[in-house]
Parts: sequence; structure tokens; C-alpha cells
Amino acid sequence: MNRVYNFSAGPSMLPEPVLVKAAEEMLDYNGTGMSVMEMSHRSKVYTSIIENAESLLRKLMKIDDSYSVLFLQGGASTQFSMIPLNLFSKYRKADFINTGNWSKKAISEAKLYGTANVIASSEEAKFTYIPEDYKLSEDVDYVHITSNNTLEGTRFMSFPETGNIPLVADMSSEIMSREIDVSRFGLIYAGAQKNLGPAGLTIVIIKNDLIGKHLNITPTMLRYETHSKEKSLYNTPPCYSIYVAGLVFKWLDDMGGVKTIEKINNEKAAILYNFLDESEMFANKVNKKDRSLMNIPFAAPTDELNEKFIKEAEQAGLSTLRGHRLIGGMRASIYNAMPVEGVIKLVEFMKKFELENK
Amino acid sequence: MNRVYNFSAGPSMLPEPVLVKAAEEMLDYNGTGMSVMEMSHRSKVYTSIIENAESLLRKLMKIDDSYSVLFLQGGASTQFSMIPLNLFSKYRKADFINTGNWSKKAISEAKLYGTANVIASSEEAKFTYIPEDYKLSEDVDYVHITSNNTLEGTRFMSFPETGNIPLVADMSSEIMSREIDVSRFGLIYAGAQKNLGPAGLTIVIIKNDLIGKHLNITPTMLRYETHSKEKSLYNTPPCYSIYVAGLVFKWLDDMGGVKTIEKINNEKAAILYNFLDESEMFANKVNKKDRSLMNIPFAAPTDELNEKFIKEAEQAGLSTLRGHRLIGGMRASIYNAMPVEGVIKLVEFMKKFELENK
Repeated sequence: MNRVYNFSAGPSMLPEPVLVKAAEEMLDYNGTGMSVMEMSHRSKVYTSIIENAESLLRKLMKIDDSYSVLFLQGGASTQFSMIPLNLFSKYRKADFINTGNWSKKAISEAKLYGTANVIASSEEAKFTYIPEDYKLSEDVDYVHITSNNTLEGTRFMSFPETGNIPLVADMSSEIMSREIDVSRFGLIYAGAQKNLGPAGLTIVIIKNDLIGKHLNITPTMLRYETHSKEKSLYNTPPCYSIYVAGLVFKWLDDMGGVKTIEKINNEKAAILYNFLDESEMFANKVNKKDRSLMNIPFAAPTDELNEKFIKEAEQAGLSTLRGHRLIGGMRASIYNAMPVEGVIKLVEFMKKFELENK
Repeated sequence: MNRVYNFSAGPSMLPEPVLVKAAEEMLDYNGTGMSVMEMSHRSKVYTSIIENAESLLRKLMKIDDSYSVLFLQGGASTQFSMIPLNLFSKYRKADFINTGNWSKKAISEAKLYGTANVIASSEEAKFTYIPEDYKLSEDVDYVHITSNNTLEGTRFMSFPETGNIPLVADMSSEIMSREIDVSRFGLIYAGAQKNLGPAGLTIVIIKNDLIGKHLNITPTMLRYETHSKEKSLYNTPPCYSIYVAGLVFKWLDDMGGVKTIEKINNEKAAILYNFLDESEMFANKVNKKDRSLMNIPFAAPTDELNEKFIKEAEQAGLSTLRGHRLIGGMRASIYNAMPVEGVIKLVEFMKKFELENK
């Protein structure tokens, strides 16, 4: 077996010990004589799996009881409609900071149910920075940001001060990668398939006082209230993905939690950015102080070099480095599960490639 | 390792060779150096996994190109709203045959968006039979049935003749358990976690001419058009569940397909029903000709005996036999992956229990 360093933007690398454990327990979880995939979601043993996952998630992100933690389906794309359907309770209007492709999708979906007020955008500069010059509205139900932009490689270093207005953040591509103060947010959501586990699981962390105010056209399955009341067991949840996410949470907790991984993530990103800043071939065009720790787009001067790079990197065991089609070039996604060695190997390869192709 | 016979109504048993294969490939799928959980859903290798799953599903159910096969999330519960949101295109009205708990949920959700016209119901008899005496409306967008009733243990032996009006069926607990003529249906849906694979995946088989007529309040992720256009890759699908479902399809195809498993399912159900009909202790109250092949509820005369039975069966490696709380007693769910031996062992245990406790 020859594991590769996989720089996919998502689904993406999982910690190897998590996969080993999942494989070991595949036919018989903990002496039950069945796989986690085969268990009734109402059974005692599965209840302990989901409760354990929630409790580790709360511990890792320091989430208190004024928030509900929900294990949902449908990805961030479903949240784009679920959020306005549940939070457009007074003004039917929200402020948006447009920082990229995923922000745009969130904006477009909110418009189905009310007013999406774009108070700032970096679209004119191809989303290479995080806007800081904006005025928040007073007559909005929430303020929405995409805290880390997977395609464009930017992130909010600090978050807007929204006072009494709930701040809503799509953290899909950076959740649990750095310490954040959850109490600053009304709602945090994230697809699991980048930092948390397999695709098919969406995490929502929502302040309890935002629950139960959905529009009456909201499908039952798209009401936060439905899932909050039933502790994510209104219907069959994505059981196996929750189990694997729980293993990832345990892995992270055992290593020292988010504080520790943040340090490692800073180290990993620095290795790559430092090289990019010195390189005469590869460039990252993002405003330095807004650079993402998780998604690092870069490019050589020509499409031919980019293609050659992607191909040769793949052969060297550095997988899935092609950039998103909207951005082009390359992108290294270096989520929590990417070891430091993977980034070191990537930089060594880039140096070699630069020498060979100059 | 001591695998049990697991009679859970869902999630439920998976074929052991499928679990063995999934465990073997957990850290390295087919020489890629990564788990299926870690792959980009846009990668060539994952594309071949999802395409292969679709093509096997089409083969097994004999589905032609006038239908789309969609791999979605959210379970049947999400379909309860998705169906009216997409199919209420002319009359905003549908006919329903109410055959149990899941029918009721489908009816209640359709009422959010139009008229749910219940043309027949067996509720007065605690859903112990499938109604046959009803008159279909002419001014409806579709007719909805629950083809197999997981809690109550009934199934439609034959399906309503709806002419030009699309017939919609929730087949969650019986899909691929018997040969059906898909061309009789406008839409078939099923949560995967009973006969097809892990929870978190929902299969929708929809006639192409029903796609693209959604109400304008329909969230993008709840439009069939969104997923049909993008071949279930509009956003990240539940990748691993699709992979495991593909392994289940392969297992079924290798053994001879739906025709073969239907024969085995008939055999399994006959073993249990024949015993129940002879037993002086255990009874199944369902109208004989409407009996489900998949879910077989039964009960002893007292709650005490039921509790004793469930407990002792569990100790004997016959797991999760407790009936649904709305029905009580016991329930044996004997889906495709339950071997004949499991049913034989259950009946042997029931005989012994009856002797010991009369």
C-alpha cells in the first residue's frame, strides 16, 4: 500500500489512524457483531456514537448549551436556502460580504426568499482580498460571511462586529483549523468533507434563540427546529459519516485540540507561502494578510507549465493539485489531516520543478 | 469476530462480502493511495465509481433512458417535500393512499404546498391491509403510494393503474427486493439504508418529463432539475455511501439480480409466516395477501412475553427485534442482505421460546 499526499479541496485527506480504526471496526463495532453502517440509529450503541461525536465537537470548539449542534445532510448548498428560510423572521433581509464563488451562491439562494444586501465585495479584484470597508445595515435578520474561501484562498483573519445582529458563517473549508470564539456567531455551518470527515454530513452550530422562527413554506426537513428538537435523529441521519467524524474529533482531541492543530496549520501554510514568496516561477496572488491557511492557490507563468506540473506531481505521489476551473493553475488544500511532511514534500517538488523548467 | 443476525428496520444488515471489500479498500482504493472517502468527487476515479453505481442500478431495475437516476441526500423525509415542490405543476393537488405512518408524513408535508387528497386509507384497521377500493381523481398532479410499509408490515402486491397521471412510490423498505416494472411509475424514491447501502443516500428514479416544473419557492438543492442536469454532482454527493451502494449492486448483480433475490426473499418470508400461522403464541395481524416480504411484525400475547423474547433473542445473536413503538411487539426486518439462515435461526429460536414459555 502506497498512500499519497492528497491536496484535494474536498473530499480530502483523513487522518490515517481514523481510516485504520474504521477499517478494523467495519464488520464488528466494539463487539456488537455489526458494522456501524448496519445499526439502527435508535439503538443504544448508536446513540452513544452520536452523543460522543457531539460532545467532542462541543469540547473542541468550546460550544456552550446556548447553542445547538446539528448533524444534517445536503452540504453547505442546502444551508444556503435553509438559513434564509429559518432566519428571515423579521426583515426578510440579510447583509452579505461577497468574497467568492460560495458567497455568491449563498447570496443568490437568499434572494429566493427575501433581500440579499451585498455590503461589500472583492469581486472586482477577482476575490483576492477580504473587504474591510463596509457599513452594516440595521434592518437585517443576519450578516453572512464565508470565513474561508476554498477556491480563492482567502480567509477572514478577524470577523465583523455585528452587535446584536446574528453573524452567520460558512466555515466549510476551515472549521476546527483555528481557534474561534463561537459566541461571536449566531450560526456556523460546514460541510464535513474537508476538515471533519466524509461527505454527506453537514455540521450546523446555531444559537438556540434563532431556532423556531422559520417561514411557513419551509420544508420540515429544512427547519432547524425539527432537528434540534430530535437531537439530529428526526429521521435517519448520515450514521456512518457521523461515526467517522467522531473518530476525527477524537484524533484531534488526543493531539491537543484546535490550539495544537492551529499551530501546525500555521507552520504548514508558512512553509508553502514562504516558498511561493521566494519562487521565481510560482505565484500566489492573494493579499498577504488575507491568505487562507487551508487552500493555497498558485500558478506558474503558463498553462503549459501548470499542466506539466500537475501531471508530474501526481506521478510523484502529490495528488489532486489542479486548481478550480474558475481560478485555473494549481491549488494545494492542506487541511488538518495533511501532515507537515506532505507540505515539505510538495515544496521540495516545486523547487525541483522550478530548477528543471526555468 | 462474531457477526449477529440483525433484524433492524434500518439501517440494517449489509452483505458481508460488501463490508469485507469496503474494509480492504479503506486506506487505498484500487491503487490510488487514498480512501474513497478522501477523493475529490470531480476526480476521474470517483466519476467511474458513481457512473458504475448508476449503471448497475439501471441494469438491476431495468431502467431506460427516459428516466433519470439521482443520488441525493436527506432521506425519504426530504422527498416528502421535494415531490410536491417539484410535481405540483398544474393542479397543486395529489391523490394519496394512506397505508401507514410514512404515508401520513408524506400527506402532511404535501399539504404545505397544495392539496393532499386521501382517496383511501386503512387507518381504521390500524393499517393492517392495503386498500383496494378507491376512485382516482382526474385533476391531480400525481398519485402517491407507500409501496411497502416498514412499521405495519404490508405491501402493495400490485400497483394502482393511474393511466396518464404519474404514480409516485416510496419504496424505501423494499426497493430491489422484487421485480417491478419501473415504466409504471413517474417517480420512485428510497432511502438507501434498508436494501441498498448506508444511511445518508437517497435514490430517486424520475421520468425525465417530470423534471423542471418545480414551484419557484423550491430551494435549488430541492429541485430535481439541479441534480439531473449535473448527474448528481451539483455539489459534493454522499460519496462513500454511493460507493458502498455500488458494492451492494455488484453483489446483487453477481448473484443473479432482482429476480434471484426475489425468490430468496419469498422463501425467507414464507419460512417466518408459515411458522407464525401455526404458532399458538406468536401472531402477525396483517391481511394475508398484503403481507410484506421485508418487514414482519409479530407479537406474543403479553408485553411481558414480548420483552422476555426480545431480551433472550438478543442474547442468542438475533438482534434488534423490538417492534416500532407505534406498533409494539416484535418486528423482523429481513431485507435482501439477511441470509436464509438468519430467518431459520429466528424461527428455531421462536419455537424453543414458545415451548419454554407456554
